[in-house]
Amino acid sequence: MSDSGKQIHDNLHTIFHPESIAVVGTNRTVGTVPHDIFMNILKDNYQGIVYPVSPGANSIAAVKSFKYILDIPDPVDMAVIVFPSSVAHMAMQQCGEKGVKSVIIISAGFREVGGAGIEREKKILEIADKYGISFIGPNCLGVINTDPAVHLNASFARKMPERGNIGFLSQSGALCTAVLDYALAKHIGFSKFVSFGNKADVSEIDLLNYLKDDPETKVILLYLEEISDGRALLNTASNIIADTGKPILILKSGRTTEGAAAAASHTGSLAGSDEICDAAFAQAGILRCQNIEEMFNIAIAMAYQPLPKGNRVAIITNAGGPGVLATDAAIQQHLQLAEFSESTTARFKKHLPKTANIKNPVDVIGDARADRYDAALSAALEDGAVDGALVILTPQSMTDIDSIANKVCEITARHEKPVYTSFMGETDVSSGIDILQRHNIPHYILPESMCTSFSRAFAFQQSLQQKKEAVSPCSDCERESALKIIESAHKDFLTEDIANQILRAYGLPVLDGKLAKSGDQAVSIADKIGYPVVLKIVSADIAHKFDVGGVQLNLKNAEEVKTAYQAIINSVEKKRPEADIAGIYVQKMAAGGTEVILGLKRDQAFGPVLMFGLGGIYVEIYKDVEFGIIPLSRDDMDNMIKGTKSYPLLSGARGRERSDIDSIIDCMRRLSQLALDFPSIAELDINPLLVHSKNNGAAVADVKIVLNKDR
Amino acid sequence: MSDSGKQIHDNLHTIFHPESIAVVGTNRTVGTVPHDIFMNILKDNYQGIVYPVSPGANSIAAVKSFKYILDIPDPVDMAVIVFPSSVAHMAMQQCGEKGVKSVIIISAGFREVGGAGIEREKKILEIADKYGISFIGPNCLGVINTDPAVHLNASFARKMPERGNIGFLSQSGALCTAVLDYALAKHIGFSKFVSFGNKADVSEIDLLNYLKDDPETKVILLYLEEISDGRALLNTASNIIADTGKPILILKSGRTTEGAAAAASHTGSLAGSDEICDAAFAQAGILRCQNIEEMFNIAIAMAYQPLPKGNRVAIITNAGGPGVLATDAAIQQHLQLAEFSESTTARFKKHLPKTANIKNPVDVIGDARADRYDAALSAALEDGAVDGALVILTPQSMTDIDSIANKVCEITARHEKPVYTSFMGETDVSSGIDILQRHNIPHYILPESMCTSFSRAFAFQQSLQQKKEAVSPCSDCERESALKIIESAHKDFLTEDIANQILRAYGLPVLDGKLAKSGDQAVSIADKIGYPVVLKIVSADIAHKFDVGGVQLNLKNAEEVKTAYQAIINSVEKKRPEADIAGIYVQKMAAGGTEVILGLKRDQAFGPVLMFGLGGIYVEIYKDVEFGIIPLSRDDMDNMIKGTKSYPLLSGARGRERSDIDSIIDCMRRLSQLALDFPSIAELDINPLLVHSKNNGAAVADVKIVLNKDR
Repeated sequence: MSDSGKQIHDNLHTIFHPESIAVVGTNRTVGTVPHDIFMNILKDNYQGIVYPVSPGANSIAAVKSFKYILDIPDPVDMAVIVFPSSVAHMAMQQCGEKGVKSVIIISAGFREVGGAGIEREKKILEIADKYGISFIGPNCLGVINTDPAVHLNASFARKMPERGNIGFLSQSGALCTAVLDYALAKHIGFSKFVSFGNKADVSEIDLLNYLKDDPETKVILLYLEEISDGRALLNTASNIIADTGKPILILKSGRTTEGAAAAASHTGSLAGSDEICDAAFAQAGILRCQNIEEMFNIAIAMAYQPLPKGNRVAIITNAGGPGVLATDAAIQQHLQLAEFSESTTARFKKHLPKTANIKNPVDVIGDARADRYDAALSAALEDGAVDGALVILTPQSMTDIDSIANKVCEITARHEKPVYTSFMGETDVSSGIDILQRHNIPHYILPESMCTSFSRAFAFQQSLQQKKEAVSPCSDCERESALKIIESAHKDFLTEDIANQILRAYGLPVLDGKLAKSGDQAVSIADKIGYPVVLKIVSADIAHKFDVGGVQLNLKNAEEVKTAYQAIINSVEKKRPEADIAGIYVQKMAAGGTEVILGLKRDQAFGPVLMFGLGGIYVEIYKDVEFGIIPLSRDDMDNMIKGTKSYPLLSGARGRERSDIDSIIDCMRRLSQLALDFPSIAELDINPLLVHSKNNGAAVADVKIVLNKDR
Repeated sequence: MSDSGKQIHDNLHTIFHPESIAVVGTNRTVGTVPHDIFMNILKDNYQGIVYPVSPGANSIAAVKSFKYILDIPDPVDMAVIVFPSSVAHMAMQQCGEKGVKSVIIISAGFREVGGAGIEREKKILEIADKYGISFIGPNCLGVINTDPAVHLNASFARKMPERGNIGFLSQSGALCTAVLDYALAKHIGFSKFVSFGNKADVSEIDLLNYLKDDPETKVILLYLEEISDGRALLNTASNIIADTGKPILILKSGRTTEGAAAAASHTGSLAGSDEICDAAFAQAGILRCQNIEEMFNIAIAMAYQPLPKGNRVAIITNAGGPGVLATDAAIQQHLQLAEFSESTTARFKKHLPKTANIKNPVDVIGDARADRYDAALSAALEDGAVDGALVILTPQSMTDIDSIANKVCEITARHEKPVYTSFMGETDVSSGIDILQRHNIPHYILPESMCTSFSRAFAFQQSLQQKKEAVSPCSDCERESALKIIESAHKDFLTEDIANQILRAYGLPVLDGKLAKSGDQAVSIADKIGYPVVLKIVSADIAHKFDVGGVQLNLKNAEEVKTAYQAIINSVEKKRPEADIAGIYVQKMAAGGTEVILGLKRDQAFGPVLMFGLGGIYVEIYKDVEFGIIPLSRDDMDNMIKGTKSYPLLSGARGRERSDIDSIIDCMRRLSQLALDFPSIAELDINPLLVHSKNNGAAVADVKIVLNKDR
């Protein structure tokens, strides 16, 4: 850990474990944030000392108050600033003078309102910097630590959550209030609960790093509207996952352009492309969630129960219909229905009525009471062919709901396999659900969510096993040659002859070719590289060569080349008279092959991104492309290729020849290196790369490179 | 309505509105179904007279009991049979003798258990038939009618639901118990609630037809595991929707093979292919739902509020984060964020604080109370550019949740536009949610479900506007010629020359071609039809011609034809020595075109089905195909073509030539006719149909027809 990293870590530790707190700017008016936050600390059984600091009051709720923090005679570990934004900097200054290193700024009215707010945020940052203060916020709900040794509710949330092993971090304070209310009703407990607001100083990265080492936290949840440093987020997340096995679940809003715009108008954030975000999270092992409910559905599975070691589930139900619905959902979520051993089947036969279905899904029948659930669940969990159990209950007239719930808790505690439940309904089943939730048995309103959560937990378990092998560095890439070519570029758009030179320097399989300035020159080049050839117009002003009649394919002899040369010149001069023509590129005609596309782009949040997909017109229609954040491991590249639907076209399915996938991987490796070496390359498209059959390589049939404007 | 239809209708009417009921087979044992069902009728305030019929008791719950139904001195309108299945037929016989035409059989132990159960079911059906009885069940939970003039709970559900305008029909009784519990907690009311079990007599079709005319029912919900008569279901549903505008929502389980197997083991049902079911429902205007929660989410939107006239929504929120989440969801659900008029914006400015976001999503800010929600919602609903409003609330410290809920109810009642809500959280917001639910304002835990429901309601409103134009009958299809060809077929698999003759009889654009028995004959055929030609092996034993070297393309002269003929014969004789070779088909080589696939198959539930998709290898990779149930309207066919992702390849997107879509439609029309005329055609595949540019037609390049084994 760097010095500054350690500093932040220590300061954060104090925010979560202060021995004394000053609430700076509190008042006596019940129902206002400055008052309520003081009261929350006071009444929620904080184990340290809290001091009100209020210029206008002698006491708050019978506690002696101070005019300034500097007036407090004893040391203060942490300050919560609730003054209006216009005077927050003064409070901050005094915190600095008092030696307080750990601060939460609740007040709004900073960067999120623009204008003077931005200046105010800058000012507090300067003061923090000067005194080595770390602060959370501004514009946040505050911080909660449920550890009974601290028991701190330094937030204006209505209620303190239960203790648990989920760490929750949120960019939105308002969402926190909904989450706390939701969690309280479901007995979902938290280790740490943080609303980090504008993250002017302490960022989600710092908080993630803190939770990494927090022994109270087993699962980390993060709500984000804005990714400021995507690469840091990915690195931090994958380190946490690799080192500790703690799952990280992120709900990232602003998926659509409109959503991102709405986010921008409310916290001044900028969203990256959503598909890239998906790819980046997957690559880092982050579980991306679609909404709050899904996030908690998965979180409770991972926080409460062991991760499934396999995907073979036993479904136990007292009703056929829901059993069918659950089976559908399980299969759609790539789970398998476990096939029970003979001895398990014998146990079912012994304990269940004749009308029961003893195959998976096991139907213990509508009049089942706790004894049948006991028999079925115990037998299933003791079967080696079962990786986990999904228990469904509908409230029928004979159903002893609470006894069944208690029995499920008891059996689950005895086994090392995950058990999830779905007691369907609402009022009648509520006491049963309450029992399950208090005993940390994941419960889901819908069998479908139960299956989805099992599947996500299993996928995470699998990803933990995957060791990602780094790709070897590209020792034969000629960085110097490429640098010279790029430095001498006059325009942002590189013509094909130039682009091909760059690719050649990086060892990509570029076809023989050369720029011709006349028909005769074209013929002599073609003679040298061999027929058939292709002719393509070369002009930095023309990005779409086909549209202007700038391409002639499959020219078989000198005569054809000469005619084609003139035809291209004529067509382009007619259609784009203003274009500056550098000449015509004469290139060896590529042998056939499967067309794929490889590309580079730069994402605002995540930096250089590699794209792979099926080429040709289908890239437009099916958008069957995958993204990867550079640098990529060999497995990442493999996953990108296998992730496309068109993978069977390459892998040799249905009697087709297997394509040379290794040569695609090699191209990906070289392009990645190029992207890392030259931040000045804004975009690159190889479309198509023609991939030949196994061991026969590939060929770049067309390439476009665009450089950054401000390179 | 047919006589038997009217009979069932009348009998069903009596089931829902009996003036007197006999519960046949009840007893004094509290907690058993036979007892509880009698008690439910008695205690749930039934407005008629209920008679217990119990061989072993003089009274049940202080009500005089009869040994047999025939002992009851007064007339009995309806009987509920709760005797064990072994004696149910005797009760049925006595019902017949008593003149009871309307019966519910609750008892299980019939078809669903197989063996003797099947016989028992047959026996009660015979008795019903003899006496003109209609009965619901067996193996069901019973029937509920909330109409206060009747107020009948003839079920063993734990509680009677509230009154409302949703009709609910379910094949699974157990699911009903979960649904009732769920609905009660959310104040979701029902008009009729029916568990129809084995549907031995009264089917979902009869019940749908009954609810069609039921003035209490506005929205119909159906849970199905087994579709016995798919075409009747589609016809009934589309008639109901067209005649009454009542939406029909179906949850059909058994989507996966495993799910269908689970269903089969529990009610002995057989599932059709799920994609076809999707297509069939969509074609009939049925809203298919994925799970119970989604079903009720959509149902309450449609039952409580007017259908949206457009998709422009105003989102009103007191929290930025959820506003962003809702915006994302709205856009993903194809809704638009309404652009407010100047006067609306002015109203927002006047009534909302400066920090509020007055663009859509409107953020009234965390400290908003009811007055701000009032101002924002009223202004939005009065804006002509707004088709509906989505109101979000998070429970922040200043939020007066109940007042806001009441205000939303009040404003919604004054306007004709739909208003949906999402009060996020659980405990704190629960009283507010309760207010909304009691006032029939749709409420959703997640903003995402709120947007999905709005989108589905809007799509339904749009589908109501669509007038489906029937296609003209195929007057030039030569049924007689095709009949002769089919009748003379020796094998199930028709060879290409025969298949082409059938297509030609039905006016499909078949390429010129003829069967040759020798190389010389092939040449003379080729000379006649003109070069280039294609040669294909003709053998009823060979389905995959390419795999055996049985095809030679693009033969340009007599010499090539002769060589190719021999090459094919040699190859096939080597690879498939046992195959019976009829000769070689000489066919005009098709000019290029976009490859599409057209097919026919027969679905067990829905009958003849037409398939359309992109041809070539992509049909395997992307499965980009659409299904339609024959007969199809012109709009249905259009929707099939437009429903494929590859549609832009045909429609002339991105500078491509527009394909002759009319000729595809014409082929679809002719194939549909063929499927209707010849049930003996089990499968047909035209792959590819080469579609030329607009007005230039299409050509069948290859066809396979398979006949039914038992034709």
